[in-house]
Amino acid sequence: MRALPLSRVYQLIEPGPVVLLSTARKTRSGARPNVMTMSWHMMVEFEPPLIACLVSGANHSFAALDKTGECVIAIPARKMAKQVVAIGNSSGAEIDKFTAFDLTARPAKKVAAPLIAECFANLECRVADRALVRRYNLFILEAVQAWIDPKQKTAKTIHHQGYGRFAVDGPVLQLDSRMR
Amino acid sequence: MRALPLSRVYQLIEPGPVVLLSTARKTRSGARPNVMTMSWHMMVEFEPPLIACLVSGANHSFAALDKTGECVIAIPARKMAKQVVAIGNSSGAEIDKFTAFDLTARPAKKVAAPLIAECFANLECRVADRALVRRYNLFILEAVQAWIDPKQKTAKTIHHQGYGRFAVDGPVLQLDSRMR
Repeated sequence: MRALPLSRVYQLIEPGPVVLLSTARKTRSGARPNVMTMSWHMMVEFEPPLIACLVSGANHSFAALDKTGECVIAIPARKMAKQVVAIGNSSGAEIDKFTAFDLTARPAKKVAAPLIAECFANLECRVADRALVRRYNLFILEAVQAWIDPKQKTAKTIHHQGYGRFAVDGPVLQLDSRMR
Repeated sequence: MRALPLSRVYQLIEPGPVVLLSTARKTRSGARPNVMTMSWHMMVEFEPPLIACLVSGANHSFAALDKTGECVIAIPARKMAKQVVAIGNSSGAEIDKFTAFDLTARPAKKVAAPLIAECFANLECRVADRALVRRYNLFILEAVQAWIDPKQKTAKTIHHQGYGRFAVDGPVLQLDSRMR
């Protein structure tokens, strides 16, 4: 994976792909990685990149994110769609999802949560603002390091429309625009 | 347009489409409608549907949203891509965008901001939480009425990847899932 300038992180999150969120919970026997599927996230600031996301208290990942203040947002391409659904339909309270779903955890540079090698992009994040965590489980994260897989240059993302239905990225439109 | 159950609003916002946000600013000579292009939004709650969004203070729409506490999120299909970009590259401080870009403003049921007849979905929203408006220009909206155009059943949305580049919805994947 190659480092991606932080100024380009918004180009990954703004289009609304389904993402995976990895965490590392501290236990007596070492850090225990976990991963969940997430579609409720948005950009808040270009640079440093701030990303808002919802992590329900019903998710096993909530406690790890809340306690450690760290996570990785990993972006899967279409070929991982079945894994994405399986990850979303299971709980880290019951299984080791990295093992169960053939995910390769790689050490991150700045956070304890692992990168996911199979994903085409990985964003190392720290919790930057907890003002709305109690009320909505809404975290504001700062991406502190970003990675892109140069071998997955044409990765197409998937967008959840409810109940296992996903739109895959289709044709690309390039329009003349002054918008960043 | 047909009323859409509020329980289904998340299926429109969760996939991350570019949307239009309409407002109605009160002036001495009556309400003045305006519209902006937006890609920084996410679901916060299923029902009642809560939607977080970023409206920069640099946008002419900010003052109208902040003062009236009302807006409409209208979702354009691919055929409106050029209008979407033109709306994003201009300011309501200078032109009447509804006239300039051939948009039809229709009265909403519960808010003063107008529906946009050409969009395949329209969500009437009220500001529900301003806790993060000062710090991030982050509004939490409640969708109080939703509309869908039955004539645009196969509408494909567009997803902004930066600098006028958009991914259009492509093939649909239907996977077996317990996720709502």
